[in-house]
Amino acid sequence: MTKMERQKENILIIGAGLCGSLLALRLGQRGYNVNVYEMRPDLRKVDISAGRSINLAFSDRGNKGMKLVGIEEKVKQLCIPMHGRMIHDVHGNTFQSNYSGRDHEYINSISRGGLNALLLDEAEKHENVSIYFNKKCKSVNFQKTTALFKDYHTKDEFVEDADVIIATDGAGSALRKSYYLGKKFLFSFSQNYLTHGYKELTILPKENGDYKIHKNALHIWPRGSFMLIALPNLDGSFTVTLFLSYDEGEYNFNNLTNEECVLEFFQKEFPDALAVMPNLLDDFFTNPTAPLGTIKCSPWHYKGNTLLMGDAAHAIVPFYGQGMNASFEDVVEFDAILDKHEGDWETVLSEYEKTRKKDTDAIADLAIDNFHEMKDHVANPIFQEKRKIEMVLEKEFPDDYSSKYSLVTFNEHMGYREAMLKGRAQDKAILNMLSDGVISPADDLKDILEKVKSETVAILEDDTIAGLH
Amino acid sequence: MTKMERQKENILIIGAGLCGSLLALRLGQRGYNVNVYEMRPDLRKVDISAGRSINLAFSDRGNKGMKLVGIEEKVKQLCIPMHGRMIHDVHGNTFQSNYSGRDHEYINSISRGGLNALLLDEAEKHENVSIYFNKKCKSVNFQKTTALFKDYHTKDEFVEDADVIIATDGAGSALRKSYYLGKKFLFSFSQNYLTHGYKELTILPKENGDYKIHKNALHIWPRGSFMLIALPNLDGSFTVTLFLSYDEGEYNFNNLTNEECVLEFFQKEFPDALAVMPNLLDDFFTNPTAPLGTIKCSPWHYKGNTLLMGDAAHAIVPFYGQGMNASFEDVVEFDAILDKHEGDWETVLSEYEKTRKKDTDAIADLAIDNFHEMKDHVANPIFQEKRKIEMVLEKEFPDDYSSKYSLVTFNEHMGYREAMLKGRAQDKAILNMLSDGVISPADDLKDILEKVKSETVAILEDDTIAGLH
Repeated sequence: MTKMERQKENILIIGAGLCGSLLALRLGQRGYNVNVYEMRPDLRKVDISAGRSINLAFSDRGNKGMKLVGIEEKVKQLCIPMHGRMIHDVHGNTFQSNYSGRDHEYINSISRGGLNALLLDEAEKHENVSIYFNKKCKSVNFQKTTALFKDYHTKDEFVEDADVIIATDGAGSALRKSYYLGKKFLFSFSQNYLTHGYKELTILPKENGDYKIHKNALHIWPRGSFMLIALPNLDGSFTVTLFLSYDEGEYNFNNLTNEECVLEFFQKEFPDALAVMPNLLDDFFTNPTAPLGTIKCSPWHYKGNTLLMGDAAHAIVPFYGQGMNASFEDVVEFDAILDKHEGDWETVLSEYEKTRKKDTDAIADLAIDNFHEMKDHVANPIFQEKRKIEMVLEKEFPDDYSSKYSLVTFNEHMGYREAMLKGRAQDKAILNMLSDGVISPADDLKDILEKVKSETVAILEDDTIAGLH
Repeated sequence: MTKMERQKENILIIGAGLCGSLLALRLGQRGYNVNVYEMRPDLRKVDISAGRSINLAFSDRGNKGMKLVGIEEKVKQLCIPMHGRMIHDVHGNTFQSNYSGRDHEYINSISRGGLNALLLDEAEKHENVSIYFNKKCKSVNFQKTTALFKDYHTKDEFVEDADVIIATDGAGSALRKSYYLGKKFLFSFSQNYLTHGYKELTILPKENGDYKIHKNALHIWPRGSFMLIALPNLDGSFTVTLFLSYDEGEYNFNNLTNEECVLEFFQKEFPDALAVMPNLLDDFFTNPTAPLGTIKCSPWHYKGNTLLMGDAAHAIVPFYGQGMNASFEDVVEFDAILDKHEGDWETVLSEYEKTRKKDTDAIADLAIDNFHEMKDHVANPIFQEKRKIEMVLEKEFPDDYSSKYSLVTFNEHMGYREAMLKGRAQDKAILNMLSDGVISPADDLKDILEKVKSETVAILEDDTIAGLH
């Protein structure tokens, strides 16, 4: 396909969030004629954050997307490295649990708005890319490849057509809704909510602008059935998130209805956090409580006409810090499929789903695993022992061992599904060998490594023979 | 609660299929004032079968429901015992694989229409039970406990209210749709389709009314990626079902569009079946091709007002022969909860979901496992070897061993979830020990039994330590 042929092709992207703006930038670079419609105002001109996911975890898979479009160095300026989890107990004692035994492996806290603005700026540098704001997609006619929009300013409705429509319009996707309601094909779909919701709070900077708690860590206050976390922002503040059941346990979102209750809850469970959050009550009663859901569906595409990408295809819970990273990796994978099949949209869209969906299904499941691990297991002795052994193995044998967390987060050339299968088998191997006394932290490290490796292989083989996976 | 108090309570049941009519009968026996609304005509007066699930597998869990209402003996008259699977290879050779090593354990083929008619007759014997036909539920106001119906004869719409509404209106449930669209609470929901659909065909009786193939078996023609099955009917015929991909493989529903193709396909894959199906082409092009889907959702109930039951709450694929049995078991479980909490509907409905949902989730997953086992594994040497060992174990140690199939089908006092966990662990133990040469069919049987038991326990423990389940 020549550049001139590509320029004749009109791609309509619904949604200019993180995924949509990276996709627009990449397709702009490839020479397509790209039009992007976004329901919200331009976040570079209007503050549209509303107490929901102000910052995000950015790591190696997301960075593949930045490398693809050549803005890795610019993004680095927005990043605050977090080398590990800083765990806070009920007495305010802390200890750090690194994400990896390899020093160069860490994750970053990044501002959603800052990164989105950069991607929009970069995309708009291409004259073949146009971005329109305040235009909400109401439905998509996937058989005709047209989309119906409403302009929030003029209140007018209008229809746009294109050669291909790609919906990156998030968990509430209009295209996905049109697939579901259209009943033109068998559409498998699931939305599953956790029993917990979340609410964002803040730790403001010191008067001199310094951070009130350690800057370079993801702070966690794990409490078994609920938890608090905090990620740093460039301005010296932390965005704090409370994950709590809606209706179970002594304290829950449904019964934390007055200031006294909320203070009592924080005083009892998070006294050291409360000490740096004089603004707690304001935040608590101003910011919304939002649900935590997982969305899966199939097919993602209709013939060569339309495609779901990012959260629109696979919204996940935030506990692996992979939501944005998975969406950026979508764009990288899509770009690789374009390299192979450009010019044949039906093959591009179906091959993309075929190669990609197994991995986004896996990260969805891993993120739910990590919900339980973060709120519960990080404070559980045998899981802590496993974690310590894995840190030492990664440090001593950096080329020979990666924990499940490292496989998922730092081994960006291994797909999520392979990382999940291998990582879960490793976890099972170590936990059982610890429990059975087959290995102990005092053993020779090389010996532990060999036992973990062979037991992991045995576990995977047993599952294969039993017809699992 | 006294009988007089119960008689003041109005229960509205949506749907007079198998689950709804059993529920109406049981609540009628308990003394409630029961009104049932069914969208279809009365199947005792009009033939409404349309080439879809004419007969069904009826087994021990379903029979618990029949015992509960005292009609076990009447139902037995409708049953044709099937002692095992009669497997047909491509050359027309057959061999029987029994469902259990215990002679008294078998499943039955039963007419959906015949059983439904019996349940309706029995329910209507109670003057406090009324059943209305041709009245389709369009939506439910679960906050007000009212339902909107359309009368198919008069075309009028009308609203009914009740103290409690129970929807047994199948996979396309109007109440479930109202939960989903109502957005009054977080509703987890999934619909997942297999890549395969199904079509019903028939083997007619001989001219003298005899069965053309062995009467007392479930016949299977497993072919790896597709299969044909046949269940006997009381009139000497068999209802045959073809399970086939919509669009994959050399032959599929999308490309079997002319008589030549269909004949070629059956001649090549099912020659012995074709020989007894002179009416194949008529059936094939008259009967619909229907999808195979699994539906799960939560919550099933809204406060003490409304409840989903049967397929409306948990539609499953047919490969374990448990769809109807699970729905009948729903009624038995619901009745047991009523015994404990009668008078407090909110507690009844929430306790019912809490105790029941884990089991219906499990049978949904087991049914998908069995899809793969039936079309593929039954023709796979190591699975056949496992099956043979299990048959001998069940025969020799009838009180000490039950295969996964037996646990699910014949151990009606063990919940589906426990049966799934134990059954899967046993399968994994036997397949791996066979593969590793730890056991062999020639070994001492008592020795095999002990090894299988201890390995099963070890597998379950390993999973527990790893935080699985």
